[in-house]
Amino acid sequence: MQHYPSQLLERAIDEFAKLPGIGDKTAMRLVLHLLRQDTKAVEVFGQSIIRLRQEVKFCRHCHNISDTEVCDICANPRRDHSLICVVEDIQDVLAIENTQQYNGVYHVLGGVISPMEGIGPSDLQIASLVERVQGGEVSEVILALSPTMEGDTTNYYLYRKLSDTGVKISVIARGVAQNDQLQYTDEVTLGRAIAGRTPFAV
Amino acid sequence: MQHYPSQLLERAIDEFAKLPGIGDKTAMRLVLHLLRQDTKAVEVFGQSIIRLRQEVKFCRHCHNISDTEVCDICANPRRDHSLICVVEDIQDVLAIENTQQYNGVYHVLGGVISPMEGIGPSDLQIASLVERVQGGEVSEVILALSPTMEGDTTNYYLYRKLSDTGVKISVIARGVAQNDQLQYTDEVTLGRAIAGRTPFAV
Repeated sequence: MQHYPSQLLERAIDEFAKLPGIGDKTAMRLVLHLLRQDTKAVEVFGQSIIRLRQEVKFCRHCHNISDTEVCDICANPRRDHSLICVVEDIQDVLAIENTQQYNGVYHVLGGVISPMEGIGPSDLQIASLVERVQGGEVSEVILALSPTMEGDTTNYYLYRKLSDTGVKISVIARGVAQNDQLQYTDEVTLGRAIAGRTPFAV
Repeated sequence: MQHYPSQLLERAIDEFAKLPGIGDKTAMRLVLHLLRQDTKAVEVFGQSIIRLRQEVKFCRHCHNISDTEVCDICANPRRDHSLICVVEDIQDVLAIENTQQYNGVYHVLGGVISPMEGIGPSDLQIASLVERVQGGEVSEVILALSPTMEGDTTNYYLYRKLSDTGVKISVIARGVAQNDQLQYTDEVTLGRAIAGRTPFAV
């Protein structure tokens, strides 16, 4: 156990070290960096975090993070509101938006079903998804969860919940990633890429 | 340029991304982690940083970080106050304390002379070191700076500043590090290890 020369220092390091992927040494480095900045700059840093947590809102339709009751995407009349893309987290919305290939709306579950971590369907925004789909305006739900065991479990659960609404349910394509070497691709991915082959088109 | 769905989110991510070694993606991950914590916990995190910067003190003898005017080490009568170990930064004090091999006191320069970064002697706690040594109670100054060009430049500058005080000036040993493979040790280190060989003792 490291003995720090200052309680204030120790507390700040401890707080940083609680963050995922930040160990004691990195925490120390970050705190010493902040110590070298202007008091004003450090206040802005601290306040930006506190304000985010205190004031952040989540869109009441899709649960994406937002500064308003309804997020920019859900409020945009030029987006296709009959198409809902179901994702695990806010980061996935950003990743899909970056592709500029999608013009529908989203539904952020806030996680995936994971019995190991004690996350069940009721911990996720699943009931509100079913409600949205039953609302009648939706024609297709795209399941865009990570291809992991938890993602697959959640996909299956959502499929069962939504199948009797008559809405089309699709899953994002799985296959070999762009620029991946075929010989280093794992067998599950490669097997799925072959099974899911599509007609060659120029 | 990423478009974020929330100004509050964007501001918090930007602040984290200013930290050394933290890119946009890591900043995003850390901020989303904080969003999942209690508001109270995030307030404690933010306040711990702000308070550290606002309230932190530096020991008026050695300039080590401290919650009091004089740090625990300088205030400890069981430490040898005639022995001053000169280090670059607070982390070095912690590293040397962890060895449990040193019972003297410290002097934290707050950096090393680096013309490339525009850091000159007057930006460092050098004048106060000379004053301490001239105070008369000191018998030895140990230079414990990193073995880099900047460290060596600073060592030489300090040596010149202190040489006419008559105090013994020493430098920490340089050689092959514990558990290092000799064949992978660089030639400067190996050369110094041979030149600085010591009598074998059991």
